[in-house]
Amino acid sequence: MLSTMQDVPLTVTRILNHGATVHGTSQVTTWTGESEPQRRSFREIGARAAQLAHALREDLGVGEDERVATFMWNNAEHVEAYFAVPCMGAVLHTLNLRLPAEQLTWIVGHAADRVIIVNGSLLGLIAPLLDRMPSVEHLVVSGPGDRSLLDGARARVHEYEDLIAAKPTDYDWPELDERRAAAMCYTSGTTGDPKGVVYSHRSIYLHSMQVNMSQSMGLTDADTSLVVVPQFHVNAWGLPHATFMTGVGMLMPDRFLQPAPLAEMIEAERPSHAAAVPTIWQGLLAELTAKPRDVSCMHQVTIGGAACPPSLMEAFDRLGVRVCHAWGMTETSPLGTVSRPPAHTIGTDEEFAYRLTQGRFPAGVEGRLIGPDGSRLPWDGESAGELEVRGPWIAGSYYGGAGGEDIRPEDKFSADGWLKTGDVGVISADGFLTLTDRAKDVIKSGGEWISSVDLENALMSHPDVAEAAVVAVPDEKWGERPLATVVLKEEATADYAALRDFLATRVAKWQLPERWAFVAAVPKTSVGKFDKKVLRRQYAHGELDVTRI
Amino acid sequence: MLSTMQDVPLTVTRILNHGATVHGTSQVTTWTGESEPQRRSFREIGARAAQLAHALREDLGVGEDERVATFMWNNAEHVEAYFAVPCMGAVLHTLNLRLPAEQLTWIVGHAADRVIIVNGSLLGLIAPLLDRMPSVEHLVVSGPGDRSLLDGARARVHEYEDLIAAKPTDYDWPELDERRAAAMCYTSGTTGDPKGVVYSHRSIYLHSMQVNMSQSMGLTDADTSLVVVPQFHVNAWGLPHATFMTGVGMLMPDRFLQPAPLAEMIEAERPSHAAAVPTIWQGLLAELTAKPRDVSCMHQVTIGGAACPPSLMEAFDRLGVRVCHAWGMTETSPLGTVSRPPAHTIGTDEEFAYRLTQGRFPAGVEGRLIGPDGSRLPWDGESAGELEVRGPWIAGSYYGGAGGEDIRPEDKFSADGWLKTGDVGVISADGFLTLTDRAKDVIKSGGEWISSVDLENALMSHPDVAEAAVVAVPDEKWGERPLATVVLKEEATADYAALRDFLATRVAKWQLPERWAFVAAVPKTSVGKFDKKVLRRQYAHGELDVTRI
Repeated sequence: MLSTMQDVPLTVTRILNHGATVHGTSQVTTWTGESEPQRRSFREIGARAAQLAHALREDLGVGEDERVATFMWNNAEHVEAYFAVPCMGAVLHTLNLRLPAEQLTWIVGHAADRVIIVNGSLLGLIAPLLDRMPSVEHLVVSGPGDRSLLDGARARVHEYEDLIAAKPTDYDWPELDERRAAAMCYTSGTTGDPKGVVYSHRSIYLHSMQVNMSQSMGLTDADTSLVVVPQFHVNAWGLPHATFMTGVGMLMPDRFLQPAPLAEMIEAERPSHAAAVPTIWQGLLAELTAKPRDVSCMHQVTIGGAACPPSLMEAFDRLGVRVCHAWGMTETSPLGTVSRPPAHTIGTDEEFAYRLTQGRFPAGVEGRLIGPDGSRLPWDGESAGELEVRGPWIAGSYYGGAGGEDIRPEDKFSADGWLKTGDVGVISADGFLTLTDRAKDVIKSGGEWISSVDLENALMSHPDVAEAAVVAVPDEKWGERPLATVVLKEEATADYAALRDFLATRVAKWQLPERWAFVAAVPKTSVGKFDKKVLRRQYAHGELDVTRI
Repeated sequence: MLSTMQDVPLTVTRILNHGATVHGTSQVTTWTGESEPQRRSFREIGARAAQLAHALREDLGVGEDERVATFMWNNAEHVEAYFAVPCMGAVLHTLNLRLPAEQLTWIVGHAADRVIIVNGSLLGLIAPLLDRMPSVEHLVVSGPGDRSLLDGARARVHEYEDLIAAKPTDYDWPELDERRAAAMCYTSGTTGDPKGVVYSHRSIYLHSMQVNMSQSMGLTDADTSLVVVPQFHVNAWGLPHATFMTGVGMLMPDRFLQPAPLAEMIEAERPSHAAAVPTIWQGLLAELTAKPRDVSCMHQVTIGGAACPPSLMEAFDRLGVRVCHAWGMTETSPLGTVSRPPAHTIGTDEEFAYRLTQGRFPAGVEGRLIGPDGSRLPWDGESAGELEVRGPWIAGSYYGGAGGEDIRPEDKFSADGWLKTGDVGVISADGFLTLTDRAKDVIKSGGEWISSVDLENALMSHPDVAEAAVVAVPDEKWGERPLATVVLKEEATADYAALRDFLATRVAKWQLPERWAFVAAVPKTSVGKFDKKVLRRQYAHGELDVTRI
């Protein structure tokens, strides 16, 4: 029996139309590094998105389902592309500007990008690669930057503003099937070739609703969100879409991602919310320690992309900023869990422990833990297994297969279609997920699992430690043992023995690393995570100065 | 181009599974009128819903798509039916227990209900009608009440608790298409036969997300909601489903809907939210005036079903209770608009004016105003037209056609599929809807429209007036003119002239009624709205004591 409800598709176009009308006066503010930021209302964004769609279709011949790539910072023009491209029936392809050249050129070729919208300030990065991007026919350049870097480029070069200037400010957006592709994003690919995740209009719509639910980010038009997490990284955690649903203002840092300008824009624009990975907040904290400023306007800070060290959360608590942990990945759009403690723990000692977990699944995401033997594990807070998830904004495959020949689908998806996240953790009886490690980073020591993340968090709570990364290294006796690499703070006095003694009060004795190395910096991936692959290689090649104690 | 997202249907089953696990310790508390209320966790509700589904399928033979009716108050067992019936693939049909006997029997026949779950305390209402309900084969009775009222009934009678007692507490819920029927509700039918609205799993799922969005009710598991709005009335505004998504506790009044027990349960259970129509709040306010209690635990009260008089909103403000206006109807699931003032007005004089509007459309609902000539009107705060809405939880037709032969589809739905709401209003440039009247209640006086609601609100702000209803009556010179019917408070001293003079300071002179009648009570519909049809008939039959001034 069918219902009598209207059959209205869930599309990005509906989000755009809503934001540009009902929330037409809400603003996207883009930092310019000059005295005044650029301010553009949602209504203007809507009009300019229509102009951009006209230009893409009429001048550049962008057809249905064609990928249109962006190579851009977080700014108003990038938001315009976020709406123009999917709403016209094409597919927004955000390029990660921190990827190595080989991955970038591989991805552009794999997606067959013919048009790239690029920020002028990024021409130095992309110009040298254009010869290795034969599919690219058009570059649309926006914002300041030296255009002469493109002299002699084979692709045609257009000025964004010139291209859209004379176009109509409305567009007869097509009615699209909600399961059609709207946007795509390649995972940064720590193993093998990058893998393309293709979001649908439906998945973006539902994810945006979830972001706005009271137990997720729960923002309203009284909020302004500082969107540090890049738009090229899982759709900036869905914020550009979610804000258009509810009229939340966006503060966009453009290329000014260093701690000092971030602190400056927080002080000047007073955002009530911010979203970024832990390393950004570590940098900001150091800046605020050196030069204190009032950042308590940020009632809520969403941290994701990596586990938030307890010390970082406590430091922000002292600044009057409430950190909320969230977990997700490119394949989960990304909202997978959000850590809002149960109501009965608020104000108790238990509360902080709950905040440190990855949190609870929202209604749209089902989660289960699978043990080493393939069995489903109970939610008892103790049974550790690989997390698998299912839901309408979770990937069930990759674009064009599994991305290269090195990944078998059965390694990433279960037989019944759930995503294998590659994360290992436990779930408590009341549904709180605690991730203990990546499946590939767990240290398998003599039949027991040691969590590298637990050791890192314990080390980073030492006052002398700036950063610490722990990786598994081969061991004759135990199979694998932990190697601790540590970045000391300036003027730190701790030595290996002191750190080991400190750790001994926090973890079981058999988990204590025997191998230690002080390093100048922990190598990071393009999105700011510890790059343990590099550390393991450095160890294997004897490039680390390792002390055994 | 298709996305790589998992194709996971949006079903009530997902809501149930989520609530019963992740939010398994949240509670449904049902008032019993005795020293202790009944308390049941979401986990228990989930287990009992599974038992109920087994009983319905195995003992009563309920098949796919079959309607299962409820004739119940708001209580835990009704919540169990809310999940058991749709999740097993059948259709929950909530019967409005305030409908006249003829409409009830017509509706049961139209829906072909074979099973009715009924509260024992309501047997006195339904027992006399069973002979006129030939489709009904099974009555499942829950809760206290005199079973002997069913002696000699043709239908088989079952005890709810006996029926489910021995059944398994889990159920292998089928994977359902999200567009399948999940629940149905007939409109109370002020004109013609009742019309059946059939909600889909998809519409309920999306509506539940919307209810939980920060700019709608925005509740979390820190909240408990006093659900006064009946479960038989548009799914209690979606609260039973929405709370299972987020772990919000529910406080259910069962049959104790009088002002005194409502005040008592608020004081005892301290809900943070409540939802009901204005007349309930008027009654509660009178009770609180007579016997003051602290009700400030209710941070937020959602009022809908009829416009909230400003005086009522102000009175609750003084009690520390924030009233939030919402608009909807059976055909809109019901969330159509919610009135949260724009952020920049908070704390200003403008804020209250915004709170009195019906509010803004959420992202899922598109709205437009259609003028008398069929043209689309601008959002300028002045152009008044009939509101039409579109969205995934808005009805596009009625069950089995338009309900009787008296309603033509083109009177209820536009050619392009939008719902004609029958409400007349304006929309401001910033998207706030202000309804001025029902299309059928507007007073068409000499080519101008007079809003009956504006006159009523102005009258009800007079300190001597308890209630006022204004209807159009035929007039030789102007076509139609307003008739004001007024219920005075006890010990009131105002006469017609005093009320007219009071009104003259608030509305244009040409809108002032010439016809006045004091009445003991304004007739109400089954859901507590002013029944203007009855007033117009009383006037036509000369049953009102009308004075012309």
